[in-house]
Amino acid sequence: MMNYKRYKKNPVVYYPERQWPNNEINKAPIWCSVDLRDGNQALIEPMVVEEKIEFFKLLVKLGFKEIEVGFPSASQIEFDFLRHLVERRLIPDDVTVQVLVQCREHLIKRTFEALEGVPKAIVHIYNSTSVLQRDVVFKMSKEEIKQIAINGTKLVKEYAKDFDGEIILEYSPESFTGTELDYALEVCNAVIDTWGPTPEKKMIINLPATVEMNTPNVYADQIEWMNKNLKNRESVILSIHPHNDRGTGIAAAELALLAGAERVEGTLFGNGERTGNVDILTIAYNMFSQGIDPELELSDINEIIEVYERVTKMKVHERHPYAGKLVFTAFSGSHQDAINKGMHALIERNNPHWEVPYLPIDPSDIGRKYEPIVRINSQSGKGGVAFIMETYFGFKLPKGMHKEFADIIQAISEKQGEVAPEQIMEEFKKNYIEKKEPLHFRKCKFDDHTEEGCTHAVVHYTDNGIEKSFEATGNGPIDAVQNGLQKELNINVKILDYSEHALSGGSGAHAAAYIHMLDLNTGKATYGVGVSSNITRASIRAIFSALNRLGVRDDNK
Amino acid sequence: MMNYKRYKKNPVVYYPERQWPNNEINKAPIWCSVDLRDGNQALIEPMVVEEKIEFFKLLVKLGFKEIEVGFPSASQIEFDFLRHLVERRLIPDDVTVQVLVQCREHLIKRTFEALEGVPKAIVHIYNSTSVLQRDVVFKMSKEEIKQIAINGTKLVKEYAKDFDGEIILEYSPESFTGTELDYALEVCNAVIDTWGPTPEKKMIINLPATVEMNTPNVYADQIEWMNKNLKNRESVILSIHPHNDRGTGIAAAELALLAGAERVEGTLFGNGERTGNVDILTIAYNMFSQGIDPELELSDINEIIEVYERVTKMKVHERHPYAGKLVFTAFSGSHQDAINKGMHALIERNNPHWEVPYLPIDPSDIGRKYEPIVRINSQSGKGGVAFIMETYFGFKLPKGMHKEFADIIQAISEKQGEVAPEQIMEEFKKNYIEKKEPLHFRKCKFDDHTEEGCTHAVVHYTDNGIEKSFEATGNGPIDAVQNGLQKELNINVKILDYSEHALSGGSGAHAAAYIHMLDLNTGKATYGVGVSSNITRASIRAIFSALNRLGVRDDNK
Repeated sequence: MMNYKRYKKNPVVYYPERQWPNNEINKAPIWCSVDLRDGNQALIEPMVVEEKIEFFKLLVKLGFKEIEVGFPSASQIEFDFLRHLVERRLIPDDVTVQVLVQCREHLIKRTFEALEGVPKAIVHIYNSTSVLQRDVVFKMSKEEIKQIAINGTKLVKEYAKDFDGEIILEYSPESFTGTELDYALEVCNAVIDTWGPTPEKKMIINLPATVEMNTPNVYADQIEWMNKNLKNRESVILSIHPHNDRGTGIAAAELALLAGAERVEGTLFGNGERTGNVDILTIAYNMFSQGIDPELELSDINEIIEVYERVTKMKVHERHPYAGKLVFTAFSGSHQDAINKGMHALIERNNPHWEVPYLPIDPSDIGRKYEPIVRINSQSGKGGVAFIMETYFGFKLPKGMHKEFADIIQAISEKQGEVAPEQIMEEFKKNYIEKKEPLHFRKCKFDDHTEEGCTHAVVHYTDNGIEKSFEATGNGPIDAVQNGLQKELNINVKILDYSEHALSGGSGAHAAAYIHMLDLNTGKATYGVGVSSNITRASIRAIFSALNRLGVRDDNK
Repeated sequence: MMNYKRYKKNPVVYYPERQWPNNEINKAPIWCSVDLRDGNQALIEPMVVEEKIEFFKLLVKLGFKEIEVGFPSASQIEFDFLRHLVERRLIPDDVTVQVLVQCREHLIKRTFEALEGVPKAIVHIYNSTSVLQRDVVFKMSKEEIKQIAINGTKLVKEYAKDFDGEIILEYSPESFTGTELDYALEVCNAVIDTWGPTPEKKMIINLPATVEMNTPNVYADQIEWMNKNLKNRESVILSIHPHNDRGTGIAAAELALLAGAERVEGTLFGNGERTGNVDILTIAYNMFSQGIDPELELSDINEIIEVYERVTKMKVHERHPYAGKLVFTAFSGSHQDAINKGMHALIERNNPHWEVPYLPIDPSDIGRKYEPIVRINSQSGKGGVAFIMETYFGFKLPKGMHKEFADIIQAISEKQGEVAPEQIMEEFKKNYIEKKEPLHFRKCKFDDHTEEGCTHAVVHYTDNGIEKSFEATGNGPIDAVQNGLQKELNINVKILDYSEHALSGGSGAHAAAYIHMLDLNTGKATYGVGVSSNITRASIRAIFSALNRLGVRDDNK
């Protein structure tokens, strides 16, 4: 029995007039990366300066225009990093760096020292406002806590006056999700009053889900309520900073955007304290997948993964949306079949919009490949095997052949687990193309007597190694060879189906021929496959392949 | 520039009368694990029979009462697994096994063969109903697709009649999130009509987000709409089956519960196709953290992780809610400080409810430990170091000492990255407890002359290795030793503060003493620490430690 009675519900907002569930996301927010601060501080091995610089450059390349670069007053390493950015001129003109600092004079002073030479910066002050933190950590009244925020604002204002550059204030009532809404509003409004932003010189009010405390709709209610009630709203950029303790950080961010948030603080792949910050990439790709410009340049996810994993020493999980190794795979046969059909329909219909079952986006749009889409295991079924044969190797197996060949692969996968495409091709060769014993086709000559509508064939082959030949006629090469073999081998077979296609473009290309053959004596049917640059020879090989598979000579051995 | 114009918005539901945002989760749903089917089919190496059996046993132990055990008609391995469960009598009386099957007679027949001997089973039929799949995969009309579902239902009804056990029907309109709502309702209602459930013999209607296609509020709207409009509602259990393509599967499930869903299909840690199924554990722990009985027995998460990782060969990510290695850590100094204070407040106030900043639940309630909560790096600050010293080693450093010692650790962490608790203890010894040169305390004798209110001390020590001793008096042992040393060494120091505590319980326990000492000649102040089973000796050692740290003899060397 779990000890659930030890916990109580976190309060929700009574707010039936909410409007956000009627809204849709139509535009990307302002993105602010906190990878170098909130992300970095949660690493087992924090980045060293050169790693931070590489990460910073990546963020710039991806199109982030606001980047929190650290907490310069907290340690020498943090201070030095910002100095490096300034002195090595690494901050592009259109990128604003952001620095975090507590509402304390000596720290704010030191922060401004670190900012020296930066033309425009966001100074991000915060203090904890939640009931619990006021109570057990600070042991201060609401009024005292509010004064911390007001004093911090005054201090930044004072230092900003003497600073040779533009300072944008950001204020966060830390642990906002554990703060009474009306009190959070009171503190934020006091900060707004003290700073005095204008529609031309806005400030940022950032409402963090420092700890995710409720279902994400509650966060959206909180954001909409604040959005409606904030003072001097037109002079404020409303920002959110969700964490992911309940695994719903992305949802909380998306619903908060519906509720009026204009700016999102988060990290790549959701790195950050505990369960992490919200993953900006997933939110951006979610927008992308719905035809919304994410306003980030994320078309090479592999590069992002490579840099991220190397410098943070964290791993991107196999099932991470868009980025995980397995997210563009389909193991189930019915999924594979549907993907296959969806892709064909896309081409046939010349559809300008991507619409393929089970693949919300075209993997190639973000630098992923088609190849890993289908993996074959014991549950992937015939569609998957046929898909591999076509997309990897160009063999368009006749529909009737799918099950026959898939059964061969399934028997293997039930023993060994996943079967790689290369092994599938190996099996295809072994069981079909190179099924050349005991009957081995060697060479042939055909004469077409068009006036008689008949073909004369001379065929050389070996039977259990012994060279043999025959002559026969028919209404075409297949018919002639079939007739000859029936007589030679004393068998009774029927060709149920035949198809052939080029394996690649150009006149020198090989063709693949498929023959579906029924043994009338045994009732057994099978496919045979032949490959050759000569289409006739390919089909004769397919006949021999089918005969060998039927085992018509097995009793003669 | 990203190719976002290639995608279009997925339609949302116009449903302003929705009620779910006003609701709260108050009760656990019926949980159905699909680990052995949806989870297993998405593994690179699907489980072998013995692994499946181990997983099944784990699910039973965790309290799952409904378990989808596979797709018995899809392959021999799937068929055999169910037979193993039956023949080895592994299905407890209160657990219902569920089997998936398409709406085809030969597969349904084979499924019933696999079920032979099962007293009660859920037969789960499905067919894809989405616009896209009707269009490109099945190329069938709405009516034809509906007929597939109706025929499947009739077939199950027929086979159920002859089956020696109870059959509960589950129907899923697969790709529900891509299906027009009114059409999904039409199909579900047709199935309900055909099956004819009653309030006593309910059937299950399962509405999968086969692919997550929108923000999670849209799924909630869809579920509430279906919930309101389903026929014979009181005879139906409304089930959901969310996937996680947009990273919001957990949110979608939670909002769907607000919207009236009564049953959740998902997997442990969200294993499943692509980005996975919804993670049942996180939903359950989210409920737990809010004082709701999750109706699963999840108090040993380590065991769940161990079995899961071993048999699936998948990894639980470091930041996975509740389960990840890093989710009960706090790297930030202010977080560590707040956790420390929160835990003390919990004890002091004897609070029956867990309330600690940054820790939504007590890790020990789910088998995790306190130890890994705090890791020390260059940004963790003084609170973290003090926390480690107290929780790992029992040293309650005086508040004034936190910064002094943390600075020592920070200098190290700025060079090497994270500092392990053991190394912190090493540094504590090196810098304080074992700071025994050049002045090394050897032994002492005290006489208390109570009538005079004064203590007489005889102290033996070495000074740069040379044995020395002195006699002195004072109002207590510390005062006496201080007076003697001042005269002996010709120094002028003041003791600013003193504290001492037992390091563990019992009379033979050691004590730790802390002396805060100011050198009046240099203005420098530092702490010294001494440890001994004798509280007097501990404090004398602390004096010597402080003197050595102040370097009072450095010029005499």
